[in-house]
Amino acid sequence: MTSRVIPVSSFALVVFGATGDLARRKLLPAMFQRDVAGQLPDDAHIFGAARARLAEGEFLLLARQAIEEHVPAPERAAASVERFLARLRYVAVEATGEEGWRELAVALASVQDRIIVFYLATGPALFGPICERLARFGLAGGNTRVVVEKPVGRDLASAQAVNTMIGSVFPEERTYRIDHYLGKETVQNLMAFRFANGLFEPLWNAAHIDHVQITVAESLGVEGRAGYYDTAGALRDMVQNHLLQLLCLVAMEPPARLDADAVRDEKLKVLCALEPITEANAAYNVVRGQYRAGASASGPVPGYLEELGLEESPAETFVAIKAGVKNWRWAGVPFYLRTGKRLAARVSEIVITFRAVAHSVFKPSAGPIIANRLVIRLQPDEGVQLWLMIKDPGPGGMRLRQVPLDMSFATAFGLRNPDAYERLVLDVVRGNQTLFMRRDEVEAAWRWIGPILEAWSHPAAEPPKPYTAGTWGPAAAIALIERDGRTWADGGT
Amino acid sequence: MTSRVIPVSSFALVVFGATGDLARRKLLPAMFQRDVAGQLPDDAHIFGAARARLAEGEFLLLARQAIEEHVPAPERAAASVERFLARLRYVAVEATGEEGWRELAVALASVQDRIIVFYLATGPALFGPICERLARFGLAGGNTRVVVEKPVGRDLASAQAVNTMIGSVFPEERTYRIDHYLGKETVQNLMAFRFANGLFEPLWNAAHIDHVQITVAESLGVEGRAGYYDTAGALRDMVQNHLLQLLCLVAMEPPARLDADAVRDEKLKVLCALEPITEANAAYNVVRGQYRAGASASGPVPGYLEELGLEESPAETFVAIKAGVKNWRWAGVPFYLRTGKRLAARVSEIVITFRAVAHSVFKPSAGPIIANRLVIRLQPDEGVQLWLMIKDPGPGGMRLRQVPLDMSFATAFGLRNPDAYERLVLDVVRGNQTLFMRRDEVEAAWRWIGPILEAWSHPAAEPPKPYTAGTWGPAAAIALIERDGRTWADGGT
Repeated sequence: MTSRVIPVSSFALVVFGATGDLARRKLLPAMFQRDVAGQLPDDAHIFGAARARLAEGEFLLLARQAIEEHVPAPERAAASVERFLARLRYVAVEATGEEGWRELAVALASVQDRIIVFYLATGPALFGPICERLARFGLAGGNTRVVVEKPVGRDLASAQAVNTMIGSVFPEERTYRIDHYLGKETVQNLMAFRFANGLFEPLWNAAHIDHVQITVAESLGVEGRAGYYDTAGALRDMVQNHLLQLLCLVAMEPPARLDADAVRDEKLKVLCALEPITEANAAYNVVRGQYRAGASASGPVPGYLEELGLEESPAETFVAIKAGVKNWRWAGVPFYLRTGKRLAARVSEIVITFRAVAHSVFKPSAGPIIANRLVIRLQPDEGVQLWLMIKDPGPGGMRLRQVPLDMSFATAFGLRNPDAYERLVLDVVRGNQTLFMRRDEVEAAWRWIGPILEAWSHPAAEPPKPYTAGTWGPAAAIALIERDGRTWADGGT
Repeated sequence: MTSRVIPVSSFALVVFGATGDLARRKLLPAMFQRDVAGQLPDDAHIFGAARARLAEGEFLLLARQAIEEHVPAPERAAASVERFLARLRYVAVEATGEEGWRELAVALASVQDRIIVFYLATGPALFGPICERLARFGLAGGNTRVVVEKPVGRDLASAQAVNTMIGSVFPEERTYRIDHYLGKETVQNLMAFRFANGLFEPLWNAAHIDHVQITVAESLGVEGRAGYYDTAGALRDMVQNHLLQLLCLVAMEPPARLDADAVRDEKLKVLCALEPITEANAAYNVVRGQYRAGASASGPVPGYLEELGLEESPAETFVAIKAGVKNWRWAGVPFYLRTGKRLAARVSEIVITFRAVAHSVFKPSAGPIIANRLVIRLQPDEGVQLWLMIKDPGPGGMRLRQVPLDMSFATAFGLRNPDAYERLVLDVVRGNQTLFMRRDEVEAAWRWIGPILEAWSHPAAEPPKPYTAGTWGPAAAIALIERDGRTWADGGT
């Protein structure tokens, strides 16, 4: 069966940083897939913009290679690739200089009657210069929208500076701060689960939920992003955006409508209700780590410092946090967050553990009653599992057993799961900001993250705790949850 | 994987009516299966007792044929059959006379040190004579138990008479009134579901459940039981016992323990809280029907009257009831009960429909939000389905879709599902009365059924409404639920 596809209005997408990693791995393949699905109007165009002085043919070759590398062969018929490449143009533009801007303006003159999306797939240092030039060359009119990638800032002050800079050219309603986690099918589904099922909402509170775990674990190391990563660390790279956004979607009140501002208002309320982590209690509620040499599935791997060729670094490649949401719904329910590189598995999931039964009516011979859990798996294999107790079948009396009611989207629908970027870029074209972070959200997240960064930068602060690559992080992260009588749901089971 | 098997104590099972339909179709195959599973002690014996003057070899042949007919070939290795047959004895006994009783007493003398189960697989007219003789021949000692099949009576007065008769020989704690529906795996599982999952109990009330449907639909006609059936009808044959028992298990309060009297106390409370159906409101809340000629999956089938060769009959082959439980938990929640012969499908299931979401946060384009349902299927294919709304996967915005989280026991565990009789007979050996109806339950059920029978027997009462064989019963049964804005969940989807 196929998904219903609703074409979007005619548009032009301008990708700054078009020769870069994000464009090649994600944006071009995503647009190609949407083209194959029939969702792009015939006259939709994609303009690559980057510093490199490529001939258009060279850029098309780069795009063709990107598609061949990142789209499975059965999904890229030759005719589809040719049709997609025919949509592409290239303009060499100097983001911090003057070259190329006039040419870009000329190229875009023919599409000024439609929606133009500027996608800044560049480092944040270029957001300001690009926006300023877009304005100066008359390219930031009411028909345009700007998309910026994280990180938006590296603390509250710098985030405010970036936001003010962008905001001086693009008003908030035309600014799209992308967090690709929010475009994932299962994250979307979390809202469907919560708000389209009468079953869950009555249980979605401190009276019925024991705790929430949010894990975004990578098995890889820093790979190609060492320079950026060493100045950022896991807290800025992952927690401030992805993990807090997921927490918001779990914890938010039902909005009146699923429209952008209603949803973002509710998320903002969660961020503002987060129990402050202070310099004083950070050591108790937060664990940071850095991997040492160890082993991955494919063999021995070096430690973080060896990988970067450094003597030492304060960058955390792992962070675990015990967070709390101080409102009526969630008082007393811990949210355990955890993310890191070189962990035992690549898995991103939200685990909602319901409270244990108030009383067991069963004989001890029935075995333990394990509290119900709802597991929302973001990757790999997006899906939802509801773990329930049932009677172990057989005539030998009542013995209980835990089983998952399982819904893997790939198997349930026999569809490929669209990549988050496919959805999000088209949401920009549609003008739907629901899945994008509003300025006040980004800044509220930084406001909560700030004291942790400050605590860590204190001269007397403990450095990141070492952990062996291929494990689930430092022992202190295990202790963080175990001291509460709970356990990390490693691997989701 | 295999189920854990705990052998029971040594016992003797004495089956009265051993040459009859129930013994051949159910009891002998059930005991054989338990033998194969290793649950019968080496010295467990089964005594067939019936009027027929069979040689032991003839009874063994009958038993062998019963196993061959009712146990799938892969489950009956020759050695297993021989071992089982070696457990069998036969005694010709005249239930209403004196012949054979002394011989039975002699045969049982060797097993008086163990539990003896008398299984009365006979018509209810023989319950009294058999019990009286068991007492007279000294066979009803403290080590014995009696199992009686439904129907226990045909109204309150006759049920009381039967119960008093049995009770004069066997005290209540040694009397087992069997309702094989209670032995079904999914019925057992209903208790596990309700009481071992923190998820469900908070939702299990009028605030969160819209209504409950209990359907026991047969596709066959009256078959071999015409004489009995024509004097009983569906209300006595099915509703008074099976359907009301299922209703009790859905509606009962959590008992303090899953022991026999605690569970039966709670079921009794439900029966006593049933909203009375009176002669005055019976026509509004109850629909009775009788099938006319029609078609089954295998071709044309005759009507009830043709099948029985009658000119006319007041026997209902279908009944639908709108019931209510007047207590704090269930006030205002209708329980729609329905059972009949020659219906469109053979399906027994409990469908619990939760209330609709309080408010839709979704755009109309998301599609309708269908209320959650928990479907507990008793037959065929015992299993549980929880119907939830999820997001239709794909990049085209939020569209909702209903999917089942599915748990079919056969596929989930790769096990054959033991027949209800396997469990229940061994429960008798174990002395576990939880799944058997207590006297006061049976009588409370009759007390509620009585006014319906009286209303029907009124000279001015409408006769059963005709329905075409192979349909879901008379149109009035559809109207019974549709007038409340609800619909029968035909076939469980």
